[in-house]
Amino acid sequence: MKVVVTGASGFLGSRLADALLRTEPPCPLNVTELILTDVYTPPPRKDPRVKVLALDLTKPSAAEELVGENCDVVFHLAAVVSGQAEAEFDYGLKANLDATKYLLDALRKTAPNAKFVFASSVGVFGGDLPPVIDDLTATMPQTSYGTAKAMCELLVNDYSRRGFVDGRSVRLPTVSVRAGVANAAMTSFASGIVREPLNGEVAVCPVDMKQELWLTSPATVIHNIIHAATLDASALGKWRSINLPGLCVSVGDMIAALREVAGDKVASLIRYEYNETISRMVASLPVHFDNKSALKLGFAVDANFNEIISLYLKEKNYKLK
Amino acid sequence: MKVVVTGASGFLGSRLADALLRTEPPCPLNVTELILTDVYTPPPRKDPRVKVLALDLTKPSAAEELVGENCDVVFHLAAVVSGQAEAEFDYGLKANLDATKYLLDALRKTAPNAKFVFASSVGVFGGDLPPVIDDLTATMPQTSYGTAKAMCELLVNDYSRRGFVDGRSVRLPTVSVRAGVANAAMTSFASGIVREPLNGEVAVCPVDMKQELWLTSPATVIHNIIHAATLDASALGKWRSINLPGLCVSVGDMIAALREVAGDKVASLIRYEYNETISRMVASLPVHFDNKSALKLGFAVDANFNEIISLYLKEKNYKLK
Repeated sequence: MKVVVTGASGFLGSRLADALLRTEPPCPLNVTELILTDVYTPPPRKDPRVKVLALDLTKPSAAEELVGENCDVVFHLAAVVSGQAEAEFDYGLKANLDATKYLLDALRKTAPNAKFVFASSVGVFGGDLPPVIDDLTATMPQTSYGTAKAMCELLVNDYSRRGFVDGRSVRLPTVSVRAGVANAAMTSFASGIVREPLNGEVAVCPVDMKQELWLTSPATVIHNIIHAATLDASALGKWRSINLPGLCVSVGDMIAALREVAGDKVASLIRYEYNETISRMVASLPVHFDNKSALKLGFAVDANFNEIISLYLKEKNYKLK
Repeated sequence: MKVVVTGASGFLGSRLADALLRTEPPCPLNVTELILTDVYTPPPRKDPRVKVLALDLTKPSAAEELVGENCDVVFHLAAVVSGQAEAEFDYGLKANLDATKYLLDALRKTAPNAKFVFASSVGVFGGDLPPVIDDLTATMPQTSYGTAKAMCELLVNDYSRRGFVDGRSVRLPTVSVRAGVANAAMTSFASGIVREPLNGEVAVCPVDMKQELWLTSPATVIHNIIHAATLDASALGKWRSINLPGLCVSVGDMIAALREVAGDKVASLIRYEYNETISRMVASLPVHFDNKSALKLGFAVDANFNEIISLYLKEKNYKLK
């Protein structure tokens, strides 16, 4: 099975590549060829199935070069993150909307049976939200990032309805704890307030302690992204967008979990510095979802935030003092 | 006030132009300059305020030529109708999505305070619909026409949120009775089954008698389109899409109303010829809306379908035999 991952140099993209290549336990997709692409060449891998290449997907010709013939699955993770899309409107739309359309058009031309897994976001929701979001809730994004994601979902659905591609859009909750460094996503702090203190560094929390977030661990979201590619189209019905399961956790509870797992000294490294722009944008994100239909489709959910931190520590081989 | 109407050669576009130029009763907008455009030059008018021009809005440069400086209101009605958008996917997306974006970009550049009234459609809804559609119902279009309209609504909202333009999208119910001739819209029959028999011609009804439609008269929808331009942005809140009020009427009841108003002989000119494609697409359209919030914003609604037919007869100076 020939598989393509865009955004493969990113945190989720490279973890997705790891999971796709894993043999123990085996990946549910039988990957025989894996093409990893990003604006910068993804790090080479020893696995002979892997090919890495640098591509600017905002150029119309790049998609056809990438997809080629006989493509079975495309995981489209490449995106300009929320903060940058807000700061650079035109480039954000090019990268987040146009590039997706070019990929869909390339598949339509060469591999209409390919599964196209589009990484969307809970950022498609906003505005006047109902108490609990379900499959019938309107997308009213209050960011340019969420706007482009919602537009892509509409394309993915229509291309699928017409048989141009077999698409599905998965709306990712905020991912925490991300390894690495802070990025321009407005929710970057949701990883920073755990990751930095564990590294003995001060972390800034820009939003109120009562602010809730809709969270998933990296491991669970990667599992779910791959699971989306295994689903038969008939399971999805008339709409190809799926709210991935998540947990609703307040920032105060995230910090309490950190304190419980890693101790007072670590938790005391968090400083509160209110940021109006970030607070406003984060407050527009939805935090209460009905996980029912996603769980019914076999998607997974984390148990609680303590477990998410413990998993992070285990993966990183952290030794708590 | 400088006003632009796209799609001005169309049935609604030319009626909108009439209404904008009307002095008795006066139009709520004080129109001092009216630019009417379409792919074919709209018919010239004697009113010195009017300028007509032919433009292909799928060409990026056309929008700037059209909008120019000091534009106050754009009514964007130009579109490829549902049947054609389904048959010609790529052209449909160019005309219905790209052209809208070019207009928004032109206003952003030269007149960010202009009001942009986008003619959207109830065709943005589809799929698994709730019993009654309200402001929080998800758009899940099952046509390429509805897909492009829903994508444009997202752009209109984000451009407005960012202050690039002052936009509002009005979702038009199916308009009946349209004067003129049948077009490629899948709901074209909803006018044909009244208009043709009144002209002594046979009309084909391609859907089941029990099929319901969400309808508005031309006069009411034109009133509402203009009303949308008079609303202050603050009345619209965080989302710029409005479900215009309508009536839910079954095809059987439409024919019964025709029989009541125009007699048996006229109504007997309707032939039933089931069309699978049209029936399926029409069945995907929503027919039950909550009119509450639109009425609260001052939009108007028709009383019943009998009145709609009577109004049509009066306007056309029909003399029933």
